[in-house]
Amino acid sequence: MLRVIVVGLGPIGQACAKAIRVERDMSLVGLVDLDPSKQGKTLDELMATPGEPVPADPSGKPSPRVTNDLPLSAVDGADVAVVTTSSRLDVIAPTLRVLLDHGMAVVSSCEQMSWPWYRHAALADELDAHARAAGRALLATGVNPGFVMDTLAVALSCMVRRVRAVRCERRVEAGLRRQPLQAKIGATMTAAQFNELAAAGKIGHEGLPESVALIAAGLGRRAEPGSVKITLEPVLAEAPTPSALGLIQPGRVSGMRNTGHWSGDGLTIDLDLTMAVGLSDPKDVITLDGPVQLRLKIPGGTPGDSATVATLLNHIHVVHEAKAGLRTMLDVPPAGCRGRD
Amino acid sequence: MLRVIVVGLGPIGQACAKAIRVERDMSLVGLVDLDPSKQGKTLDELMATPGEPVPADPSGKPSPRVTNDLPLSAVDGADVAVVTTSSRLDVIAPTLRVLLDHGMAVVSSCEQMSWPWYRHAALADELDAHARAAGRALLATGVNPGFVMDTLAVALSCMVRRVRAVRCERRVEAGLRRQPLQAKIGATMTAAQFNELAAAGKIGHEGLPESVALIAAGLGRRAEPGSVKITLEPVLAEAPTPSALGLIQPGRVSGMRNTGHWSGDGLTIDLDLTMAVGLSDPKDVITLDGPVQLRLKIPGGTPGDSATVATLLNHIHVVHEAKAGLRTMLDVPPAGCRGRD
Repeated sequence: MLRVIVVGLGPIGQACAKAIRVERDMSLVGLVDLDPSKQGKTLDELMATPGEPVPADPSGKPSPRVTNDLPLSAVDGADVAVVTTSSRLDVIAPTLRVLLDHGMAVVSSCEQMSWPWYRHAALADELDAHARAAGRALLATGVNPGFVMDTLAVALSCMVRRVRAVRCERRVEAGLRRQPLQAKIGATMTAAQFNELAAAGKIGHEGLPESVALIAAGLGRRAEPGSVKITLEPVLAEAPTPSALGLIQPGRVSGMRNTGHWSGDGLTIDLDLTMAVGLSDPKDVITLDGPVQLRLKIPGGTPGDSATVATLLNHIHVVHEAKAGLRTMLDVPPAGCRGRD
Repeated sequence: MLRVIVVGLGPIGQACAKAIRVERDMSLVGLVDLDPSKQGKTLDELMATPGEPVPADPSGKPSPRVTNDLPLSAVDGADVAVVTTSSRLDVIAPTLRVLLDHGMAVVSSCEQMSWPWYRHAALADELDAHARAAGRALLATGVNPGFVMDTLAVALSCMVRRVRAVRCERRVEAGLRRQPLQAKIGATMTAAQFNELAAAGKIGHEGLPESVALIAAGLGRRAEPGSVKITLEPVLAEAPTPSALGLIQPGRVSGMRNTGHWSGDGLTIDLDLTMAVGLSDPKDVITLDGPVQLRLKIPGGTPGDSATVATLLNHIHVVHEAKAGLRTMLDVPPAGCRGRD
């Protein structure tokens, strides 16, 4: 029985906590968030619809209450922490240090941590040394970055001996995703509003450069900091399109297209991510070009929200057993879904 | 620079040796085969067309000469052995022990070794202990078993939290494969000949039960020895079909269909492999059923011969770095293709 805590109780953190609670081989022993409005609440209270009665959890298991206590005295002895607080490694680094010092391994959705040397080489080295000294592993995972646009391409490449180009295309029908995601990709904005946010670095998918750098490393290359070229542009609705934010008029933004490109040492990597409301033909496609071409397709695409939670949970036992240090998806074996009713 | 030897110089072993020889980060230091007709030959001499001059290897690197010396005194100090001698673990076990005692890690195409506990539990435990004592790893890999009908399904399952059924379908156009493979699947036989061989266990794909057991283990279950149901039937040509063995007349065997089935602990696993000459729509398809369904397709299918060699080579550095013991594809990280010109 693994004792698990969740740090960061936004939508993904809450969904992780709920999923951990029903598992046979895990015990949810702590909930941590700094938000004053969440303090002292149980998971059921957190997830309840405002103004409606708090439903009992079908698992019948008790829930810990949210604390902001990050010396974590209350949960000493937990095995693994799931950290879903921020996309930025420098932001979560102090949390990681505290968790390691309390003997926990950490699995996180932090996008920048999926290839931490790309943006934070010195900090990554320091965290790696800290984790080794603590005898515990740190690992970031997720759908993207983490799997469908990086690790899966590396895994597939074991079937060939030369790769000259990797292309990963992901098309997400954001109309099926939660409202915050639709807002995040700019749905209902004008193109001018979108481009202003883009120019300020306030919109766009987090983690494309890290995915590129992870693929490069998996194929024996090294993408130096700053070497990945990123483009970002709005996708405009061609017809009136219903969204969680209201009707998107033709010409308004329905989503975004984000690409990443790197080339070096006989290899080209291209990632092409489109997330938009009303998108046709959602899919994940990986193409490896070389003397032998390989193409892999996931028709309909990997479902983002549920898969993010699933992969965090499936890596709990992986990070618990992993060699101490700051690890990536290139260091760990496949995290088979061991969950059962 | 990894020093590598190849043990077993059939078509796959020869292709591995040839591929190792051109790699920048590997050195081919030994060739071992028991066949008297191969003794003393260089790789170029082995691969030459009978009666034609021996072509020089484009790599310009020297080749060792074939030896049957399996105390291996000549190649002491090699790092990794590639073993492609037999599908049977009991047959290769003595070779594995010698290689371990000489300090080598081993990567093998031995199908039964891909989940060695299914057919040879006691021997597997003994080899595991031997490998741990020697401080080296043993690993079997390949296309199938090894990746497209097992490991890839486990890897994909990290995206979901419940799997109720795994289905892997592989359709191979054997007309594109080497002649021995076409013979192996029964091309040009009568159905009666095929069924007689099938009843005697002398035809059929090797490794389906191991693939099933590997998937089960990856999803936290255990397929007990003998629990996988196998079916085998001939595929009959509907029209005259050219093959490497001559024209296949309608009604004659063009190939085979082999299935594996297991069910237990809330999970069903079905593998469906068809290999036939003239097959339409070759592909690999993995379906994970559960509350969230995932489907992955490799249109055209993974090319068998080149991919077998590629995955053995890509796992050379993986097995060299792996933890000592008898390992499986569930224990090791993705073997990205690091080869380059």
